[in-house]
Amino acid sequence: MTHTSERLILLSDAEYALRLERLQQAMAPGADGMLVTDNANLYWLTGRVFAGYAYVPAQGAALYGLRRCVHLEGPGVAAERKIEDFAARVAAECPAAGRLALEMDAASYAAVERARLAFAAQWPDVQAVSATGALRAVRAVKTPVQLDMMRLSGVRHEAVYRRIPRLYRPGMSDIELQVEIERLSRLEGCLGQFRVAGGEMELFMGSILTGDNADAPSPYDFAMGGAGMDPSLPVGADGSVIRPGTTVMVDMNGDFTGYMTDMTRTFCLGAIAPEAERAHEVSRDICRRLAETGRPGVQARDMYETAIAMAREAGLEQYFMGHRQHAGFVGHGLGIEINEAPVIAPRSRDVLREGMCIALEPKFVIPGTGAVGIENTYVVRSEGPMECITGAPEEIIDLEK
Amino acid sequence: MTHTSERLILLSDAEYALRLERLQQAMAPGADGMLVTDNANLYWLTGRVFAGYAYVPAQGAALYGLRRCVHLEGPGVAAERKIEDFAARVAAECPAAGRLALEMDAASYAAVERARLAFAAQWPDVQAVSATGALRAVRAVKTPVQLDMMRLSGVRHEAVYRRIPRLYRPGMSDIELQVEIERLSRLEGCLGQFRVAGGEMELFMGSILTGDNADAPSPYDFAMGGAGMDPSLPVGADGSVIRPGTTVMVDMNGDFTGYMTDMTRTFCLGAIAPEAERAHEVSRDICRRLAETGRPGVQARDMYETAIAMAREAGLEQYFMGHRQHAGFVGHGLGIEINEAPVIAPRSRDVLREGMCIALEPKFVIPGTGAVGIENTYVVRSEGPMECITGAPEEIIDLEK
Repeated sequence: MTHTSERLILLSDAEYALRLERLQQAMAPGADGMLVTDNANLYWLTGRVFAGYAYVPAQGAALYGLRRCVHLEGPGVAAERKIEDFAARVAAECPAAGRLALEMDAASYAAVERARLAFAAQWPDVQAVSATGALRAVRAVKTPVQLDMMRLSGVRHEAVYRRIPRLYRPGMSDIELQVEIERLSRLEGCLGQFRVAGGEMELFMGSILTGDNADAPSPYDFAMGGAGMDPSLPVGADGSVIRPGTTVMVDMNGDFTGYMTDMTRTFCLGAIAPEAERAHEVSRDICRRLAETGRPGVQARDMYETAIAMAREAGLEQYFMGHRQHAGFVGHGLGIEINEAPVIAPRSRDVLREGMCIALEPKFVIPGTGAVGIENTYVVRSEGPMECITGAPEEIIDLEK
Repeated sequence: MTHTSERLILLSDAEYALRLERLQQAMAPGADGMLVTDNANLYWLTGRVFAGYAYVPAQGAALYGLRRCVHLEGPGVAAERKIEDFAARVAAECPAAGRLALEMDAASYAAVERARLAFAAQWPDVQAVSATGALRAVRAVKTPVQLDMMRLSGVRHEAVYRRIPRLYRPGMSDIELQVEIERLSRLEGCLGQFRVAGGEMELFMGSILTGDNADAPSPYDFAMGGAGMDPSLPVGADGSVIRPGTTVMVDMNGDFTGYMTDMTRTFCLGAIAPEAERAHEVSRDICRRLAETGRPGVQARDMYETAIAMAREAGLEQYFMGHRQHAGFVGHGLGIEINEAPVIAPRSRDVLREGMCIALEPKFVIPGTGAVGIENTYVVRSEGPMECITGAPEEIIDLEK
């Protein structure tokens, strides 16, 4: 067996240069250099997850330290098991940073503090600042290469959703249907990994909600709840048998490429309450309206106001984004993680920019019937309207037909 | 629909009192109070994951603040969306803590710093200390109730593994076999969630390694590597077809109860190299020896030395715990998370205590054949030997027989 080395940077030279430049532009007003250690951030920067550190100066080439995987190579790459050793090389090769940006929201207190001390040992006057704002801004706007990865996830995601009716068998419970969708997704290439920034939200592969379980409160900040199968993971399917006259809302993992799409579709068993049918169409109308009007410069909070006004106008506000417990948003940015910028919420200060990817999920919970509505992932284009990249049929599909 | 409240503490009164007492004993030498916010730690303390905070004073009752899920109730429970509000109530009801333990390894820098400031606003002289040591120590030793949850995971885990040969079809790739095992696991009740402390390690449901992919280095600190299906998740199965003369090592998720077991078994296709057969038996011998001698007071590092000495004596040291890249441990504690204390490694200072749960995984990678060996989860008992709670057959099973 030959053990050849591999290039650490998996992106093309042009793509890598573009991402580095965008990050440097975003950080420069507040920092002279940034330490990157989080898996999602390293993947964004290099095209691969590896165990180590990147130092990105406000100008010039980045340096990389490897804690493991010493077969990776490239300019500025060296093996350094300890952050202290990496900091020493950074200090030897880069000008001292007065303000050093650290991943204060993505890394643990202990890890940030250790990194801060490692750099302070080299640069006594260094001030630690947060890298969160710059990383959040730069990751929200996808490059053309990243958009193609999002679109590819959307194509595969759609292929799975189109086959969901064939997976249903009479008498199935929500979790049984979910397991069959999981299997199909995995065979279609879904990586399964569901990355969430912040460490508070947990979900395995996605959520299937049928009947009144859609109204069960969950501790996680997802749009919909569900009691879940166990108090260690109280979200989503709870083992309810899918019953006539109720809906089944399917919101399953779209990570087929490292960049994930988010898509929800609603199914039913036999006829459902007319109000539920109507609410579903209102959800589709809200998505259409927001997609038509979404373009660079639009305020995220205005999109939220439009959505809730449409729900109110339809007389459905009490069911909008939940009934017993309401979610405080109708959409969110996504890509490597499910909760990127922008947030489509009442007090959001985010503004749409070309290349952003946004999942819109104006959903309703109708007591006695279940959850209805759709979710699509959209790309913000220069002139609008937004491009939908999750194309499965939007109608409520009867699983028994 | 009636919306009744639910008790926040899901444990029996006796079990809750036992856990609280153990935590208070563990923290008291270093802290006067502890703030708990991490999902895994909250689950350990209360028996459920919820969105909020717990304050555990060194003596007396704990207080709970709910960020969501305000239907939960109990003594000391109130709705407080902000940590600042929770800190104010804690200060009003508890004596001032001179040393406040915060989750410096489990929570982000920003979250810890915000909590620190919230409490400093109430208690100007408060010193923040790390909660990591006390939580790590107390979570390592399972209560009888927790041991029963571990055993139940083991029983279900074993039921899945016994049926693996029936899932194999000629021509299958590693990932295709993995998907069928995932489906079976989920139908058997596996929750899927794979909790890892520290945020650096990622894995979806588990790992299947066949042939030389077992020797592909991975950035994650698992015992075995594997190239994975995508550079965003470079670990485990890489899509290799399972070929005659090679092994298939199965190390799949055992989280059936919120407390997970870890178990590895080796399968093969037709005859494999005698050296691989021999290494597999050495792995079983190492597990037997360590299980026989493992009891309270034994040093973790001595267990590691025993294991590596046995591998050396068999002339297999170069293949032990990997070949191209070696893992630096042969076992680890586990429970709610896969990487709890103790660590069975050369420089570990951990000492075995009654009630600890330990996964032992002395594995070998034989070039040209693949990975061999087993992994079992054991409970440390007062008089020894350790109790094995993952009982699937340990022999290498030929998938074609």
